[in-house]
Amino acid sequence: MDDVVLAIDLGGTKVEAALVDRDGVISSGSRRRSETGPGAGFAELRDALGEVVLGTVSARLSTQIITAVGIGSAGPLSSGEATVSPLNLPVHDFPIVAVVREVVGDALPIRLALDGTCIALAESRFGAASGVSNSVSMVVSTGVGGGIVIDGVPIGGEHGNAGHIGQLRVAADESAEDPTVGTLESVASGPATVAWARGQRWSGQTGMDLAESAQTGDLVARAAIERSAKAVGQTLAGVCALLDVGLIVIGGGFSLVSGDYVHLVQQSARSAAVLPAARTVRVVRAALGSDAPLVGAALLTFP
Amino acid sequence: MDDVVLAIDLGGTKVEAALVDRDGVISSGSRRRSETGPGAGFAELRDALGEVVLGTVSARLSTQIITAVGIGSAGPLSSGEATVSPLNLPVHDFPIVAVVREVVGDALPIRLALDGTCIALAESRFGAASGVSNSVSMVVSTGVGGGIVIDGVPIGGEHGNAGHIGQLRVAADESAEDPTVGTLESVASGPATVAWARGQRWSGQTGMDLAESAQTGDLVARAAIERSAKAVGQTLAGVCALLDVGLIVIGGGFSLVSGDYVHLVQQSARSAAVLPAARTVRVVRAALGSDAPLVGAALLTFP
Repeated sequence: MDDVVLAIDLGGTKVEAALVDRDGVISSGSRRRSETGPGAGFAELRDALGEVVLGTVSARLSTQIITAVGIGSAGPLSSGEATVSPLNLPVHDFPIVAVVREVVGDALPIRLALDGTCIALAESRFGAASGVSNSVSMVVSTGVGGGIVIDGVPIGGEHGNAGHIGQLRVAADESAEDPTVGTLESVASGPATVAWARGQRWSGQTGMDLAESAQTGDLVARAAIERSAKAVGQTLAGVCALLDVGLIVIGGGFSLVSGDYVHLVQQSARSAAVLPAARTVRVVRAALGSDAPLVGAALLTFP
Repeated sequence: MDDVVLAIDLGGTKVEAALVDRDGVISSGSRRRSETGPGAGFAELRDALGEVVLGTVSARLSTQIITAVGIGSAGPLSSGEATVSPLNLPVHDFPIVAVVREVVGDALPIRLALDGTCIALAESRFGAASGVSNSVSMVVSTGVGGGIVIDGVPIGGEHGNAGHIGQLRVAADESAEDPTVGTLESVASGPATVAWARGQRWSGQTGMDLAESAQTGDLVARAAIERSAKAVGQTLAGVCALLDVGLIVIGGGFSLVSGDYVHLVQQSARSAAVLPAARTVRVVRAALGSDAPLVGAALLTFP
């Protein structure tokens, strides 16, 4: 028999589930997804979770045994690491562990962590940071988040909320004309970058529009992309000073806006570095893509 | 027989040594200190280390056995965690482990960590953060540094340099009139704060002068102190978002500049917090004072 984990990912606009084995492989045909949209309340989330979990469980092969449930969720986690209050959802203290427990019964152990923590764990074990002891993995997308692995172990902190890199404030650059000071997410996320470009009279609507405009030589679109990468890099320079990590992994839809986005981030991080070691930090693309949250959620439960 | 550790602390202007037992107690009469001044080169540091180590070893009681050597040093550590290149000293790649090895011989294990890491370890085990799993301890003095303890374990990072909180850039405050943007150390240290006050036509010379002026109602002196505490707190808000620590310990000479300095830092950290959990972060005074680097260095070697 093959041990597999029921992995669940609760995001800002969807929930997913899949069966994942010890090698981080998602069982083919086991993945289920339900779009919940940005306004999902308690009932919608509960129903969507029930639907994807039952769908995934019913796809179990007769040779597979589900040994545990691993959940990654948009953060922050709240009371007792059993509930979540995602920044981008209207629910507060959503009892995700209890809701999943109702569906799967009492027999299976359930582990919950921040989605960023799951992604960092997955990239560190099977992805772009494999073989590296100390790394930060982050996502630049609708939101900006991340996770931290130190000495091979994911860092949770007091309430499991370590890794909220998007909620760091960006240090203003003395030479910058743009005095925007806010959280990294409010400056560098996909929607924030699109909004900034539109404020500069660029007329597109989405990150994909921005990618196309930049490729055809639009200077505002290019400046917007560089502005996002610069802010991410400046924040990472501080993260490197604080945590002494030598490798940063970047994923998320908006990081694909330009072929050199990750390189621009690395440039910015190195030039904002104060300590010599941080001037050689490597910034690389994520390897696991949209599998990372589920794979990492499963890894929470494997010893 | 009593096991003790030979603990050594290399700072920007002095070296110290002492015998420390498993309970974090410095053996009375064993502490030695040599002032090296800010310009100390290789020979001065080597001689000073030899002097304090031999002095401390010769103070060993006949009932004491030295089982190991623990070294805390101003950072950053450099190549292979055996050498240091302190930011405030002219030496580069100073081979502190080899230099100490020459004095103590080959028999004893030697462990080296950042002084900030040692302080955090000591405060976490025996000081103001005892009983708390996740904490950051920092020093506001001539420099600004710190160390991180997560799940009870001090975090070193890739080269042992995690905790360089003074080398984070301070996010400019939108409402601030002062557009200074630089590292936390360059904004909030004792000398930086005195220099800022003098730039506002305050006429004192030292942190102690600043404390006295503020106490007698000098508005510039008070503003300078508040400016330092505010920058420390703003930086800590980011640290809390990233690491999810619930307790910050503050020590160092300049933190004594005002009775409410630690409270001002807490106020600033809470009001700059983005995540709900960080709005309740506690900021407290260090408990171990100038013993912390030596006690923490000893703890590096106790299992």
